[in-house]
Amino acid sequence: MAVYTQLGPEQVSTFLAHYDAGELVALKGIAEGVENSNYFVETTKSRFILTLYENRVDPADLPFFYALLKHLHEAGCKVPRFIPDKKGEWLQNLAGRPACLIEFLQGVSVTQPTSAQARATGVALGQMHAALTDFALQRPNSLGLSSWRKLAGQCTNAGLDGIKDGLAARIEAECDYLERHWPENLPLRAIHADLFPDNVLMLGDRVTGLIDFYFACTDALGYDLAVTHSAWCFASDGSRFHPELSRNLLGGYDSAHGIDAPTRAALPIFCRGACLRFLLTRCYDWINTPANALVTRKDPLAFLRRLDFYCDDANISELMGQLGNAFEAG
Amino acid sequence: MAVYTQLGPEQVSTFLAHYDAGELVALKGIAEGVENSNYFVETTKSRFILTLYENRVDPADLPFFYALLKHLHEAGCKVPRFIPDKKGEWLQNLAGRPACLIEFLQGVSVTQPTSAQARATGVALGQMHAALTDFALQRPNSLGLSSWRKLAGQCTNAGLDGIKDGLAARIEAECDYLERHWPENLPLRAIHADLFPDNVLMLGDRVTGLIDFYFACTDALGYDLAVTHSAWCFASDGSRFHPELSRNLLGGYDSAHGIDAPTRAALPIFCRGACLRFLLTRCYDWINTPANALVTRKDPLAFLRRLDFYCDDANISELMGQLGNAFEAG
Repeated sequence: MAVYTQLGPEQVSTFLAHYDAGELVALKGIAEGVENSNYFVETTKSRFILTLYENRVDPADLPFFYALLKHLHEAGCKVPRFIPDKKGEWLQNLAGRPACLIEFLQGVSVTQPTSAQARATGVALGQMHAALTDFALQRPNSLGLSSWRKLAGQCTNAGLDGIKDGLAARIEAECDYLERHWPENLPLRAIHADLFPDNVLMLGDRVTGLIDFYFACTDALGYDLAVTHSAWCFASDGSRFHPELSRNLLGGYDSAHGIDAPTRAALPIFCRGACLRFLLTRCYDWINTPANALVTRKDPLAFLRRLDFYCDDANISELMGQLGNAFEAG
Repeated sequence: MAVYTQLGPEQVSTFLAHYDAGELVALKGIAEGVENSNYFVETTKSRFILTLYENRVDPADLPFFYALLKHLHEAGCKVPRFIPDKKGEWLQNLAGRPACLIEFLQGVSVTQPTSAQARATGVALGQMHAALTDFALQRPNSLGLSSWRKLAGQCTNAGLDGIKDGLAARIEAECDYLERHWPENLPLRAIHADLFPDNVLMLGDRVTGLIDFYFACTDALGYDLAVTHSAWCFASDGSRFHPELSRNLLGGYDSAHGIDAPTRAALPIFCRGACLRFLLTRCYDWINTPANALVTRKDPLAFLRRLDFYCDDANISELMGQLGNAFEAG
């Protein structure tokens, strides 16, 4: 959420000269995305996002992201395209960093979703999954099930218990549970894996763009649905579940893609896994970000509260009821 | 250079409903300006900058800035206007902070000015000064001559000498010198007082906007010219003087406004004062900003090097020669 690499307009004009993109008329560093530097670029022809990849994105993964967005765009999904230069190259080097020029999409990221917006997001996620049925490239999920115990170790028991007394033991027990119950028989596909409201651009109730695919990877579709469910259907601090948002998100997804019986059965486990993933990465960032840094540290406990929700049988019954209704509506 | 207050699109849409400004279609936090939160706002009708004033700007000063920009705009100068709402109010409250909707101007801030760009900036500064001849409102310069000794005291001798050995004594001697030699007989006018390349928007060699007037105040015109000279005519670390930029900046200013004999005589003192002002505020920020904060601390010594330049008689002779040429060219 900051600009790590300062660019002058002279550099950006030289960069743009490789493209058929017009002349630079505005350049603003924007506070957006994971640990990349992002600029809003306006030219005489169009508008773009210019992204410089800092440490968090591995340049070796960029071809996967490029192919994924190209595939989705060609399938009619609303995602930003990487723009190729005059020679067809979409990956450049700028200020010593991998850099890409990316399509600018209109729309805003809602912070208090309505039911209609949750439904539209479910539909967009389902359409994306449907479009990726024939996408062949793979990228292992480096933040999936097999990473969680290691991530907890990097946080250390003292670090975790410093966030909340007993958290280390709770996380270890959850790892045990998920390793025992994780479904092994479901097909793996390309998924977004981080579809928070931040990463959905909307105009009114309409989705104008799914963005920030830098955690996209190969994993179960139901896990992607679970991540989205945990991100969209609670008060942001996790203190309250919003059943109407849940019903609409699941209903929208089901209408666009369907939720098969094995995915339906696995959804409670996937939801617990999604909560553990964000709980752990937020704990890691919390422990490793100085309290006085200008980066906002996101509260890890917001995902412990969600995890508590998904561990409660009564809540799972309610969710399963909604899935039943979604089936009927679908 | 960061977004301090997070705004959701719901809040911004409610805010925009007070204006005849269209519907929100894009919202991006931008890294720009002093310690304010700035958003790029696009609507179905136009584009704007939405500024929330954080601690550094005193809300009591906003009417001065508003009147100044209105006056300059009506005089044909390229500056961003504060947009009034349907009731004519230009100052609002948003997320508990004073907030203004401001015109978005095209153009980029050059980092390596050319001679033509320095000349255009001199012309724009001269035109601004000419337009402000009949501007009556006053705002004392809280970072002027009378503030410098106090600012040095707030840095403490230990703090200053920690930046560079002997700096505290050097600054005290400079305060002594400037207090003895500061011209008292020059008229005071509204000036920008911070016209760094950052604060000039350009398209090619053309100035499309002077921006960031939040240090504007009542002081000598020659001091404004000196600030601009010190900001534009050196390598950014102060290690090298660029005589061609200087000749063009001064020539451009002279062609648009003229440089009278008392201002010409005072210019070397004003240049030393401008250097001391930025040296001191950068020392203060250096001492008071944690080294690991994401805010970039600007090197104070970049202005000590400029101060050294303006203290050298041979350099001053060169400058005076350029002013002579500027007179002849004008």
